Amino acid sequence: MTTEKLIDEIRKKKSFLCIGLDVDLNKIPKHLLKEEDPIFAFNKAIIDATHHLCVAYKPNTAFYEAYGLKGWKALEKTINYLNEKYPEIFTIADAKRGDIGNTSKMYAKAFLEDLGFDSITVAPYMGKDSVEPFLTLDNKHTILLALTSNQGAFDFQTKKIEGKELYKQVLETSKSWDNAKNLMYVVGATKAEYFAEIRKIIPDSFLLVPGVGAQGGNLQDVCNYGMNENIGLLVNSSRGIIYASQGSDFADAASNNALKLQKEMEVILSK
Amino acid sequence: MTTEKLIDEIRKKKSFLCIGLDVDLNKIPKHLLKEEDPIFAFNKAIIDATHHLCVAYKPNTAFYEAYGLKGWKALEKTINYLNEKYPEIFTIADAKRGDIGNTSKMYAKAFLEDLGFDSITVAPYMGKDSVEPFLTLDNKHTILLALTSNQGAFDFQTKKIEGKELYKQVLETSKSWDNAKNLMYVVGATKAEYFAEIRKIIPDSFLLVPGVGAQGGNLQDVCNYGMNENIGLLVNSSRGIIYASQGSDFADAASNNALKLQKEMEVILSK
Repeated sequence: MTTEKLIDEIRKKKSFLCIGLDVDLNKIPKHLLKEEDPIFAFNKAIIDATHHLCVAYKPNTAFYEAYGLKGWKALEKTINYLNEKYPEIFTIADAKRGDIGNTSKMYAKAFLEDLGFDSITVAPYMGKDSVEPFLTLDNKHTILLALTSNQGAFDFQTKKIEGKELYKQVLETSKSWDNAKNLMYVVGATKAEYFAEIRKIIPDSFLLVPGVGAQGGNLQDVCNYGMNENIGLLVNSSRGIIYASQGSDFADAASNNALKLQKEMEVILSK
Repeated sequence: MTTEKLIDEIRKKKSFLCIGLDVDLNKIPKHLLKEEDPIFAFNKAIIDATHHLCVAYKPNTAFYEAYGLKGWKALEKTINYLNEKYPEIFTIADAKRGDIGNTSKMYAKAFLEDLGFDSITVAPYMGKDSVEPFLTLDNKHTILLALTSNQGAFDFQTKKIEGKELYKQVLETSKSWDNAKNLMYVVGATKAEYFAEIRKIIPDSFLLVPGVGAQGGNLQDVCNYGMNENIGLLVNSSRGIIYASQGSDFADAASNNALKLQKEMEVILSK
């Protein structure tokens, strides 16, 4: 998907919500466990109930790999369902991959070509040649970890390298990589005051923002500091939406919680 | 597997060789493509021909994910085959994972519990709470990326944070994490002069060393600087062994190349 198309969808739906599909069989409604593929059945119901309120879905691959073959199958069915039924949706494989060039190329093939995701999250630790293989495909996006939403972000990311925090070095350095136009960045909502600094380095890039809701980040703060002329934000919520209820009303409950966030976003976008 | 058992195996086999099972269907012998599961057929033949010359196998998960469901199935069959037929072998899921705690726990379950690998490679960028979930299991090992063998290692890893290179900060900081005794580290062979510095910080830990062979690292240099009283090294070779021949003699050719490395190791160990 082109960035322009993503921006159009945000304006049309008055939403920059991304819903994280982190499916844990211990947390989904019990009646779904009787289904042949409970993970896909859960995702399908959540997607059908929320697709008009969000612009992106983000399955975290860990939750699928944890169920082995059947998990991988459910991931395939989920992305195929999204691509066939809701092609206007931006899809993110939250995989946090990154390896030597030869190997990153295999990951890019797996997620962006074969599975057909629009984007993948990638870790920067191994540098330029570990990320560039993901950047070669037109209209596919690589979402680089910059400042994550967890406590461990303070272990290395906020430490200073040559006078500048590591996450800022990552932002600066990545701008010079081949096809850097295909980069987006992960920036955690729990550190809203950092967004102003980040926007000085990458004014135009899209930011994927986890940490609103369950992890404590505030939507209004994130938008005050992080929004740009083309919105430039995808705000993710996972547990707060998909586990809104564990009863048979789970899809409606998810839709209600997504609607609350979408309404907040509509107000922010109207200003 | 306990570290003691790994050291015993190294002394018994006079080898600290790890063989990387990075299976690319474009590079394996053509006659195997007729098999029901060419990836597993290739791995099985390589393992049967080389298991007495090495102490570890390391499938890189990218190569399996690139083939979707059938790749994942081949990975399962490969680890099951190793655990059943050669339980004395140390197994490494070269996955380079790392995510928020909640999610890292799912990856730990997938690779160390369900698939039954002895160890997994993990990226440090997200810090303490992204790695600790991997460290909780007894006799399972987390191999943290420190200094990788690719050119991109110089983008961030060798840059100084508060006077000390990032990879050294990763080594130092990780020593204070819960169950740090279960940590090993990735250190690329292409930078042998760094090993002396690294041994000052982590004298006792095992190091997984990629980059000997195809990537240009030298075995003798690595051992001069990196070996400790308990050997403390697993030296990996992937392409140099598994793609030694593309003919019907591929397994013998792999065995020959593994034997050459094992003989070099035997000489080094005898000193």
